[in-house]
Amino acid sequence: MAVRVGVVGGGQLARMMIAPAAELGLEIRVLAESEGMSAALAATAVGDYRDLETVRAFARDVDVLTFDHEHVPQDVLRALVADGVAVHPGPDALRFAQDKLEMRERLTQLGMPQPDWARVENADQLQEFLDDHGHRAVVKTPRGGYDGKGVRVVSAATEAQDWFTALAEDARGGALLVEELVDFRRELAQQVARRPSGEIVAYPVVETVQRDGVCAEVVAPAPGAQGRVAAEAERIGVAIAEGLGVTGMLAVELFETTDERLLVNELAMRPHNSGHWSQDGAVTSQFEQHLRAVLDLPLGATSARAPWSVMINILGGPAEGTLEDRFDAAMSAHPAAKVHTYGKAPRPGRKIGHVNVAGGDLDDVVYEARAAAAHFLD
Amino acid sequence: MAVRVGVVGGGQLARMMIAPAAELGLEIRVLAESEGMSAALAATAVGDYRDLETVRAFARDVDVLTFDHEHVPQDVLRALVADGVAVHPGPDALRFAQDKLEMRERLTQLGMPQPDWARVENADQLQEFLDDHGHRAVVKTPRGGYDGKGVRVVSAATEAQDWFTALAEDARGGALLVEELVDFRRELAQQVARRPSGEIVAYPVVETVQRDGVCAEVVAPAPGAQGRVAAEAERIGVAIAEGLGVTGMLAVELFETTDERLLVNELAMRPHNSGHWSQDGAVTSQFEQHLRAVLDLPLGATSARAPWSVMINILGGPAEGTLEDRFDAAMSAHPAAKVHTYGKAPRPGRKIGHVNVAGGDLDDVVYEARAAAAHFLD
Repeated sequence: MAVRVGVVGGGQLARMMIAPAAELGLEIRVLAESEGMSAALAATAVGDYRDLETVRAFARDVDVLTFDHEHVPQDVLRALVADGVAVHPGPDALRFAQDKLEMRERLTQLGMPQPDWARVENADQLQEFLDDHGHRAVVKTPRGGYDGKGVRVVSAATEAQDWFTALAEDARGGALLVEELVDFRRELAQQVARRPSGEIVAYPVVETVQRDGVCAEVVAPAPGAQGRVAAEAERIGVAIAEGLGVTGMLAVELFETTDERLLVNELAMRPHNSGHWSQDGAVTSQFEQHLRAVLDLPLGATSARAPWSVMINILGGPAEGTLEDRFDAAMSAHPAAKVHTYGKAPRPGRKIGHVNVAGGDLDDVVYEARAAAAHFLD
Repeated sequence: MAVRVGVVGGGQLARMMIAPAAELGLEIRVLAESEGMSAALAATAVGDYRDLETVRAFARDVDVLTFDHEHVPQDVLRALVADGVAVHPGPDALRFAQDKLEMRERLTQLGMPQPDWARVENADQLQEFLDDHGHRAVVKTPRGGYDGKGVRVVSAATEAQDWFTALAEDARGGALLVEELVDFRRELAQQVARRPSGEIVAYPVVETVQRDGVCAEVVAPAPGAQGRVAAEAERIGVAIAEGLGVTGMLAVELFETTDERLLVNELAMRPHNSGHWSQDGAVTSQFEQHLRAVLDLPLGATSARAPWSVMINILGGPAEGTLEDRFDAAMSAHPAAKVHTYGKAPRPGRKIGHVNVAGGDLDDVVYEARAAAAHFLD
């Protein structure tokens, strides 16, 4: 019988595990949030991932449990581990992807380079941080943020007053995370994969371009980062994966500062948008790698298949009709572009697909990828 | 609603369409011969592809009908076309893949280079051909042969007497195909894809190595074939696709003779074993290309991603256990090898998977691919 990998969450990350699973003869089972999601082809259950009995019933018929997102609550994860379910990444690692304050504290213990940061429980503490850091800083809710949500640049503590009020009303109490506003040259992302038995591999560090807090473009490898910067990014990625006990794919989002330091911005413990290029540009895609890692199979080569790969997100999609309506125009003009769709209806700002192009000349590759993706946007 | 591609036949060729279909947002539906076949993940029906009503019911819910094999009878195909079903490749093309005598006759009309051949209805006619061609020749049953079945090298007409006897007992009558035994240097395969609207693209010509009539290894591109041989192979592939009105993928198996001519051996109108390298070695895999072609979508780039790609079939598999039991050893020793499995139980001679390796040095790539595949064989 085929090995069964259970994925909690029916989004595009789960969907993109289907292709490599089919080739490796693995069975993907998905616990989707609702009907008709991205990974519907493999959805064997629909239910609430916050409900222990729902997840427990789903986990009963799989050999390993993994995730499309990091939102499964700690108490659910710990109950599954107690049941004997192989959960990867496990709760002891996932907590650092679930809570940005815990992440900052742990990375400080590990000596990882980070922006200056502080835990602030009230407006006075935040104002003090602002006064010490040029009167501007980034405030984050420790939990629940993604794609720019739960993140705010402020120049006065009053601008986060609504979040402090919400904290005060929350019986669990808590605090906000404040970070210095880093003067960065660009953003990078380092992906590594780690098996439960300890093997670890690193992908080439990539450059990511965000727009409105959402990943828009990725260039692999990051131009000009072949030497010291690449080595430092890999060192950081490996140290975090080992230090936090991550299993599966880990993405470390990094700032490259104007004075050429790398600082850790965010973590993701799953396949990540910054690694979509690997589907068409690396020997082993991040989706195959994640499956191998969570199954404790030997990891695949992470080397690039081409000198340059570029990924462009299709954000929002066409104003009228579907992505598929644009296949004809996009594919006829750009035969080397690889189009990946998520089975999601167009909606402003929504990630509904991406385009990968790989090749030998960076300017050409960037041009082709952007031009192909433009066919899917109005 | 997603575009629905119906595939008749549940073998590995249908299975390997699942991955690119998921990425392109196409829905694959498979009419499988039985439960538990390679393409079971996408099987929406199980039934006999020779039965018109079975195929008709399956075809009702798809946007285009295509195939994992060429065995659907002409009367079934023609009834579906009369129903208005989009059938690709259509019966007028498929007949030349179904009947080797019809193929030889049509290719002669098209002026394609072929081995000397004749239609022989009895032993006297066969003996005459043998006398004219050095007393050895290849006799083939026009229908139903594959992977070396229905093919026999003979030096006397008596050696095909059982086939003549069977013909005489068949109310439909018929004849055998006899072909000269070509003194070939090696075997090549040329793949092309053609859309109903006429666009056509050609893949690099590859070298195929057969063992016991079954494809064992493929090297892409065929070493030393970059110049005249590659151009001639492409010319032949394009002329046949256009001349026969093929839609979807076409594979033309070729002999390269010791005096450097190319002669057409066999045709296949579907993805083909000689193109499995394209999954990891070409910008557009033959499986994605087949889907695009039968849907009349613009065709993808056929260029290689690496200087060399090698595919090794896993024939038979391990004497004990499953392919998956060998993942650990194969993957840890060969991290750059791409393993593709068909969900089939090991059995002597059976194609149950393949390994692709791509890279810059042909000797290294051949070594890696063979060594990785060897882990799956005893």
